[in-house]
Amino acid sequence: MSRSLRVLVWNEGVHERDDNPPGIGEYYPDGIHGAIAAGLRRLLPDAEVGTATLDDPEHGLTEEVLARTDVLLWWGHIAHDQVDDAVEARVRRHVLGGMGLLVLHSGHYAKVFTRLLGTTCSLAWRNDGQQELVWTVKPTHPVAEGVPSPLVIPEQEMYGELFDIPDPDDLVFISSFAGGEVFRSGVTFTRGRGRIFYFSPGDQDYPVYHHEDVQRVLANGVRWAAAPEGVDRAVPDVTNPGRTWR
Amino acid sequence: MSRSLRVLVWNEGVHERDDNPPGIGEYYPDGIHGAIAAGLRRLLPDAEVGTATLDDPEHGLTEEVLARTDVLLWWGHIAHDQVDDAVEARVRRHVLGGMGLLVLHSGHYAKVFTRLLGTTCSLAWRNDGQQELVWTVKPTHPVAEGVPSPLVIPEQEMYGELFDIPDPDDLVFISSFAGGEVFRSGVTFTRGRGRIFYFSPGDQDYPVYHHEDVQRVLANGVRWAAAPEGVDRAVPDVTNPGRTWR
Amino acid sequence: MSRSLRVLVWNEGVHERDDNPPGIGEYYPDGIHGAIAAGLRRLLPDAEVGTATLDDPEHGLTEEVLARTDVLLWWGHIAHDQVDDAVEARVRRHVLGGMGLLVLHSGHYAKVFTRLLGTTCSLAWRNDGQQELVWTVKPTHPVAEGVPSPLVIPEQEMYGELFDIPDPDDLVFISSFAGGEVFRSGVTFTRGRGRIFYFSPGDQDYPVYHHEDVQRVLANGVRWAAAPEGVDRAVPDVTNPGRTWR
Amino acid sequence: MSRSLRVLVWNEGVHERDDNPPGIGEYYPDGIHGAIAAGLRRLLPDAEVGTATLDDPEHGLTEEVLARTDVLLWWGHIAHDQVDDAVEARVRRHVLGGMGLLVLHSGHYAKVFTRLLGTTCSLAWRNDGQQELVWTVKPTHPVAEGVPSPLVIPEQEMYGELFDIPDPDDLVFISSFAGGEVFRSGVTFTRGRGRIFYFSPGDQDYPVYHHEDVQRVLANGVRWAAAPEGVDRAVPDVTNPGRTWR
Repeated sequence: MSRSLRVLVWNEGVHERDDNPPGIGEYYPDGIHGAIAAGLRRLLPDAEVGTATLDDPEHGLTEEVLARTDVLLWWGHIAHDQVDDAVEARVRRHVLGGMGLLVLHSGHYAKVFTRLLGTTCSLAWRNDGQQELVWTVKPTHPVAEGVPSPLVIPEQEMYGELFDIPDPDDLVFISSFAGGEVFRSGVTFTRGRGRIFYFSPGDQDYPVYHHEDVQRVLANGVRWAAAPEGVDRAVPDVTNPGRTWR
Repeated sequence: MSRSLRVLVWNEGVHERDDNPPGIGEYYPDGIHGAIAAGLRRLLPDAEVGTATLDDPEHGLTEEVLARTDVLLWWGHIAHDQVDDAVEARVRRHVLGGMGLLVLHSGHYAKVFTRLLGTTCSLAWRNDGQQELVWTVKPTHPVAEGVPSPLVIPEQEMYGELFDIPDPDDLVFISSFAGGEVFRSGVTFTRGRGRIFYFSPGDQDYPVYHHEDVQRVLANGVRWAAAPEGVDRAVPDVTNPGRTWR
Repeated sequence: MSRSLRVLVWNEGVHERDDNPPGIGEYYPDGIHGAIAAGLRRLLPDAEVGTATLDDPEHGLTEEVLARTDVLLWWGHIAHDQVDDAVEARVRRHVLGGMGLLVLHSGHYAKVFTRLLGTTCSLAWRNDGQQELVWTVKPTHPVAEGVPSPLVIPEQEMYGELFDIPDPDDLVFISSFAGGEVFRSGVTFTRGRGRIFYFSPGDQDYPVYHHEDVQRVLANGVRWAAAPEGVDRAVPDVTNPGRTWR
Repeated sequence: MSRSLRVLVWNEGVHERDDNPPGIGEYYPDGIHGAIAAGLRRLLPDAEVGTATLDDPEHGLTEEVLARTDVLLWWGHIAHDQVDDAVEARVRRHVLGGMGLLVLHSGHYAKVFTRLLGTTCSLAWRNDGQQELVWTVKPTHPVAEGVPSPLVIPEQEMYGELFDIPDPDDLVFISSFAGGEVFRSGVTFTRGRGRIFYFSPGDQDYPVYHHEDVQRVLANGVRWAAAPEGVDRAVPDVTNPGRTWR
């Protein structure tokens, strides 16, 4: 893939704005989006990596921006309902037309994710700052390339089953937590022409996106989710071919 | 399964009401829903089979009715947009909670189907009244039990690929048409606790639902989609268990 | 399903014969197969449940026996290579023709399992007698019916990823272990007309098959894996239909 | 992928040797393998493409050759049973360790394919030289890139369902035939670390491998099946990690 990948990291940005949790600015001085973008720039030096947040006009997700985005990353938590429905529909249309989408952590409840999957996307959770171990169960998948198994995250919120999602195309990672819970923490979906990767580590209370192995997973995800160069970005539509083949 | 299955056949009923196509009343004197219900009663004599249409109050899909429905069948075509959004949301909630759903033919564009699947569900079509052959490719699946391969439908509208759906849990039937097209005509999905079966034969222009083998598929589908007796009908919801296991 | 299910519990029986581990006869006085059979008889009172072991003539797996078996359960560990190749081929032929197969714990290395799956079926292991938690991730699957999540096994050998199996049809259970490892402990496959369920708890060092919830899983598995009544037991074979349909 | 892909096209070569069908040398003067190799060289100019046949010492599939092969293509038909079991086991070991494998047409009955899949891989067939239409049903899959839908093959043997294979990872192509039959003609599997792609067009009676779109599919398949550069070629093996993570 010789072209520059055009990547957009979206974050609601409300935790950082409101200093909630207090001190978040110490480990995320440039916001969650800033840390994610920095990791991608380190590992994908040829990519163009931008950021956008809820407070930007149209949340920074205009038609023009989306049309030149190969892969969108989405982090949201406490402001899902502040995302404009028209913007959500626009993002979803672009995913169905071939824009890659990485949904992160509490983004499991983002409108665009639940609308693309059709289920509640609910899960069990407990925030005790315990160790998370991320085990690779499909090592041939591109998002697992070069990722240690287990990937060790010293402190993280527990996300546990039952994770109410449709069966994924590929189950790549399963996490365990110190409390004994398990979670399908790395799963892929195809919707329309769009490739979707959900990866659960990344709570705002812990500096997870500075973790080099987590950055590796996200960079792998971006490369995997990008449509091949030259693919027409078009939502599938009903057609009457008006001819036959026999 | 010793209890009586409670089945509801829903049809928008607009083609019949408007005599469109002219003469539809000759082969569907009791409506498309009436023919489907008759087939189910023949093959599932212990089931309680009811019907409802768009013109019924709340489209006949009240909370009370849905709460005592094990499996809902859905036929719609030209009035998808007349289905009330609140009713659609109610039906979808019941599916996610465990009510079985059979979506038929042009129901691929029903709000509840596209919302549960997340994709456009668009497809190619051509209505020449040609022969459709329905081939079984997963003979161990319960919906294929006792169904000949191919199931021959003398005249039917062509539905062809690309069918824009997520990868199904199981691909049970593939159809070919006289024009050479193919279609994944029998596919299953799980969404939340609900089992969903889409089966494509059944255009309003042809008396497909009187076909004994088609009736067999629908009866199989109903038995398969019903949740086991005693299962709590509840939509999965986010939880904090508030305890650990180690 | 009104007929009596005919179930055969196969165990190599070598651990019991050799009192290895010493004292196995105290918690498995009737052998591992005896405990499994007792659990099935308790939960499936209408089933005919028999047992067979390696030392029986033809390992108790004659053509006649297999032809009247609906579901075979397989436990083996240290004597996989003593299973006669002709017997293995016979069992495999019956599975492909529609006999259900439940493979238990160290049976992951049984000839018949690796031959049906095609991979090494290797895994990571550590026998420290730690707690295993078995979490349900597909609650709508029949093998999960009535099973608590997590199912708690106080002491058990650790089986961990990477489990080298093909992607299963359904991933029903994921286990975690006190050491932090995870394992896809309940997975289903279809091969030919045969339904296969692998369930990992059950090391010879611990009285796992007396656990009521484990017995529930096995009874569910037996019901799920049995082919519908009246199905012809036949291995798919190449055919030239000698005619066309158009 | 900057390195040169090393590709080996294997063909039993018996049809060509025996001039069966008479005149095969006219459309395949360099053998089926020669035509396939020429297509790959045209579309993958940076790849090293070699060939081997049954009559070569060890069928041309020595340990040394396989160790430096990224992707192996396999065409066989009337000489499957002449493939040495030790060679088949060696090829299979390399696939499980990460060598890509493309299995073509009548190779569905090749020992290495049936051993990797575990099923009979039988199918229905009829050789009338009728038109085959290959429809894309997963356009986002790399093997479908740039392939028209339908891909039209003027004359080809019919291969039809039931194709006795395990559920594939991805169903990319479905074919229809003039007689009305359908076939899952492009399917992928993962076994161990190996990616496998089966593509059915290619009977010895017709010059299918000169078809530019067929060549496109094979070139796509080769790129897709190759493991990422730098991946250790190792068959998964059972391990006792001898430590815990908590």
